[in-house]
Amino acid sequence: MPCVVLVRSQMGENIGAAARAMMNFGLKELRLVAPRDGWPNAKALEMSAHATHIIEQATVFDSLAEAVADCTLVIAASARRRDLAMRYLEPVAAAQEMVAQSHRAAWVFGPENNGLSNEDVAHCNAVVTIPTHPDNSSLNIAQSVGILAYETFKASGAHAREPENAEAPASHDSVQKLIAVLDEALDARGFYKTAELKPKMQQTIRAMLGRMVMSQQEVQVLWGMMMTLLKREV
Amino acid sequence: MPCVVLVRSQMGENIGAAARAMMNFGLKELRLVAPRDGWPNAKALEMSAHATHIIEQATVFDSLAEAVADCTLVIAASARRRDLAMRYLEPVAAAQEMVAQSHRAAWVFGPENNGLSNEDVAHCNAVVTIPTHPDNSSLNIAQSVGILAYETFKASGAHAREPENAEAPASHDSVQKLIAVLDEALDARGFYKTAELKPKMQQTIRAMLGRMVMSQQEVQVLWGMMMTLLKREV
Repeated sequence: MPCVVLVRSQMGENIGAAARAMMNFGLKELRLVAPRDGWPNAKALEMSAHATHIIEQATVFDSLAEAVADCTLVIAASARRRDLAMRYLEPVAAAQEMVAQSHRAAWVFGPENNGLSNEDVAHCNAVVTIPTHPDNSSLNIAQSVGILAYETFKASGAHAREPENAEAPASHDSVQKLIAVLDEALDARGFYKTAELKPKMQQTIRAMLGRMVMSQQEVQVLWGMMMTLLKREV
Repeated sequence: MPCVVLVRSQMGENIGAAARAMMNFGLKELRLVAPRDGWPNAKALEMSAHATHIIEQATVFDSLAEAVADCTLVIAASARRRDLAMRYLEPVAAAQEMVAQSHRAAWVFGPENNGLSNEDVAHCNAVVTIPTHPDNSSLNIAQSVGILAYETFKASGAHAREPENAEAPASHDSVQKLIAVLDEALDARGFYKTAELKPKMQQTIRAMLGRMVMSQQEVQVLWGMMMTLLKREV
């Protein structure tokens, strides 16, 4: 998985929040280029929640070039297009390139106020822009880290999907029996106003219930409800 | 675009950061259910950066049911699977459903410490889980809002198509009224065997019906069915 490089970050709180987001999505290595308030930073540690080891093991560099020296793919996060002939990627495509790397790769983020300089960007292989509403493109840095970490995690396929609904599903047959009994009860009480309307109404009921994809237990609950409604008040 | 509902949020800072992220991705309407520290909240305003109008125009409700009364699709964000048979979606699919709504829809987020209660979740039509590393699934709430807002924004762009013009969807409120009357009829007929079982059974029913995402017409049909079953045979 790629590392995260924060260039000239200003607020310790943002470094901490970025580390927390990294940890949520399985990114472990944080590199800092000339953090404004020096390093270590108590606020960074505080805001990192359970990601303290990411903060404690962060490495500090004087320049971006040094920070990414061992990386084979370096992608700069930028809110705006640059006056530079770079490859411009959207997050999904960028994340796919990242996880395809067999060597070290890096996501690079600039300072809170101005973002990366063109000189920084020129050290990178590509630029990724998180799509935002044109009126408000200024993302909090930890949000940017979180969104690209999230896309990286998705692209890595590391999130093996949990099996769907653990409860035993109802058989088609058991649902049909329920519908048949319901239909009979409705019919006996004059629900279907006319013979012409009946098939259409029945379809609507079937579609509604069919759409629920019920568990066995839920079919039982529906039986119970139906039988209860058919009783007189006690 | 959907609104964002924050349920029993604890920290004003998080509400502010969530508003900022909403604004980045073009979501404008914030609804608060019983914020811990009351409302308005100076820290929320401070952390919202340029999204002050979202904070200033936020509306406050006593309950989730009231907050989403006018919504036709309500999706709960949850880090974990619930003991409720709900539809479970991943963010991209959930966002696509959101932007396909022609009526009001809502993303719902729980408090920082515990997330949404099962009672809250049972008021929703589906659950979305942001995939995270299994060791660290606890996302900051503003990060969660940011990621789902980002996916919503992406889906809205990709979704230049006409919304699927099916039947008019039912409002949350109209479904709740139906459930309330059903509940009363069941209770009067001794459906809930014990006082202890009652809340769990009610949740199951609510989850089943909520999962259907009904049209107005279907709610009418269900009313008719229920009223018919309550009648004696003719």
